[in-house]
Amino acid sequence: MSKHNPHASCSHDPASQDSECEHCHRDPKGVYLFSPSSAVADPAALDLARQRLQELGFRTAVDRSALEVHERFAGTDKQRVAAVHRALKQKHEIVMATRGGYGLNRILHQIDWQAVADSGKVFIGHSDFTAFNLALFAQTGAISFTGPSAIPDFGQKTLDDLTADLFMESMREELEVLSFESPDSDPVDARGTLWGGNLAMVVSLLGTPYFPHVEGGILFLEDVGEHPYRIERMLTQLLHAGVLARQKAIVLGRFTEFRLAAHDNGYTLDSVIRWLRSLCKVPVVTGLPYGHVKLKATLPVGAQAGIATEDGMAYLLLREHH
Amino acid sequence: MSKHNPHASCSHDPASQDSECEHCHRDPKGVYLFSPSSAVADPAALDLARQRLQELGFRTAVDRSALEVHERFAGTDKQRVAAVHRALKQKHEIVMATRGGYGLNRILHQIDWQAVADSGKVFIGHSDFTAFNLALFAQTGAISFTGPSAIPDFGQKTLDDLTADLFMESMREELEVLSFESPDSDPVDARGTLWGGNLAMVVSLLGTPYFPHVEGGILFLEDVGEHPYRIERMLTQLLHAGVLARQKAIVLGRFTEFRLAAHDNGYTLDSVIRWLRSLCKVPVVTGLPYGHVKLKATLPVGAQAGIATEDGMAYLLLREHH
Repeated sequence: MSKHNPHASCSHDPASQDSECEHCHRDPKGVYLFSPSSAVADPAALDLARQRLQELGFRTAVDRSALEVHERFAGTDKQRVAAVHRALKQKHEIVMATRGGYGLNRILHQIDWQAVADSGKVFIGHSDFTAFNLALFAQTGAISFTGPSAIPDFGQKTLDDLTADLFMESMREELEVLSFESPDSDPVDARGTLWGGNLAMVVSLLGTPYFPHVEGGILFLEDVGEHPYRIERMLTQLLHAGVLARQKAIVLGRFTEFRLAAHDNGYTLDSVIRWLRSLCKVPVVTGLPYGHVKLKATLPVGAQAGIATEDGMAYLLLREHH
Repeated sequence: MSKHNPHASCSHDPASQDSECEHCHRDPKGVYLFSPSSAVADPAALDLARQRLQELGFRTAVDRSALEVHERFAGTDKQRVAAVHRALKQKHEIVMATRGGYGLNRILHQIDWQAVADSGKVFIGHSDFTAFNLALFAQTGAISFTGPSAIPDFGQKTLDDLTADLFMESMREELEVLSFESPDSDPVDARGTLWGGNLAMVVSLLGTPYFPHVEGGILFLEDVGEHPYRIERMLTQLLHAGVLARQKAIVLGRFTEFRLAAHDNGYTLDSVIRWLRSLCKVPVVTGLPYGHVKLKATLPVGAQAGIATEDGMAYLLLREHH
């Protein structure tokens, strides 16, 4: 995987705000860490994440209920909703989820989405955070990000440099093209709204006011710990709901940590993708570095983007050349 | 659990068609066994199920592709769709799924639902078969049944007598009231369309043309092997989609075979139900003998029914007194 870097010809220090550099006009100043989903099991990992973000040049702050625990959640629903709204009023530009897990679906109806959009804050999270990304976009059209969270990404023993690098460049709006190996992709060259995230979370919003109606979009998906038959059942729901046919491309990230059984009898994730392709003529692009894996791109949910494939490579155009 | 029996005062032989008995005017004559979902792993269990059904007075026939195997399915999609359509043209009145598993979602768009409705056949199955029940009702308004399948119910070592009894009475349209212990239920006395089944399957149809739009219904749900947080996520989807609020009652069957973890920290299925009740004022009725358990009622999906609770008991009125 490689990426174009508009800073290649300028001496850019991520921690500085170089007013001479045309790409630094909106350098994010700080990261506010909050917990809208599951409880943080290991506060030390959050400390490490914070330290890592500081080493990358960010000021950081931790929401006062980020380490709360109620049942399996990072605090009661009321506390987690308050944390979302508190994040809108503090000074740091980036608001990052400490972790995923589960907990957003049950508070979606209590979040003031217009206030989130109006705040201009740059929200980022992963997995369960897909519910936040999609609900915000469905309710207001505002863009937010999916990519690394504090935990596991920044708080794990070895930080994945490319993940951090992609995060930094995305936050600075420098990342123009994300290119990745994509040996089994359909030919495509299209533009549209980039949207998606964790497949189970995307599907968990179908039929609700938090599911965005996207025509001609670029839908990206990943999942973890779901058997291929469940992945297929979820894709089939999107298919039967007409969602897949409305897209210009379906971009597949990583589907990991599932176990096949003897009675699968040759049925694999490949069977699922083959079957899907037989029913849906929307181009499928594979190999997106995104999922419950160390290397994950930072992607803007709701932004206009382009996707193209050529010679076993795919190119996700995230930013127009000015 | 007990049930009213209109045959209490007539000498009724299940195998006969007693033209003197007013309840026997539509005595089912035979059961046709077909496989629309997962492959039958144990043909001996199907033989045993057939023998058991014969002992109960049914003639039986097995569809010619009932034992097919393709990947994890009971034959290719084409074979399973053909089996559904073949079932419409054979002579037996009852058409029973050999088993559940997974496989119906991916062929829903290939089934001629009007032909299924027009056939007048009495379809019955469980679990994955919820997709069939709901799609048929959504597409045509026709009633079908959820309840025992050949496997595991009739093909297991010990047949659950009450399950068999309830099945027999339902097939003869004799079962008037299903009463069951329901200690923690909300007060309710309502009538409406009875519908539902396996929660994951119900939710897997949301947003598609196979999800019935039921106003003022009695929605019953069960599931197996799903952690409470997943049960909650699915219920939340029905909540946010407005489905729960449109019902007159939510009737909970058995939710079984999940494992809590240390980090659940007191979060249980009870927490989920409590939370749901705090958000949705539709009466919740517990204790329905239905689920991935030995004792399961046979229920007509799409039929008009009544539900009432009193003194720790619930009464599901399945048939009006004439």
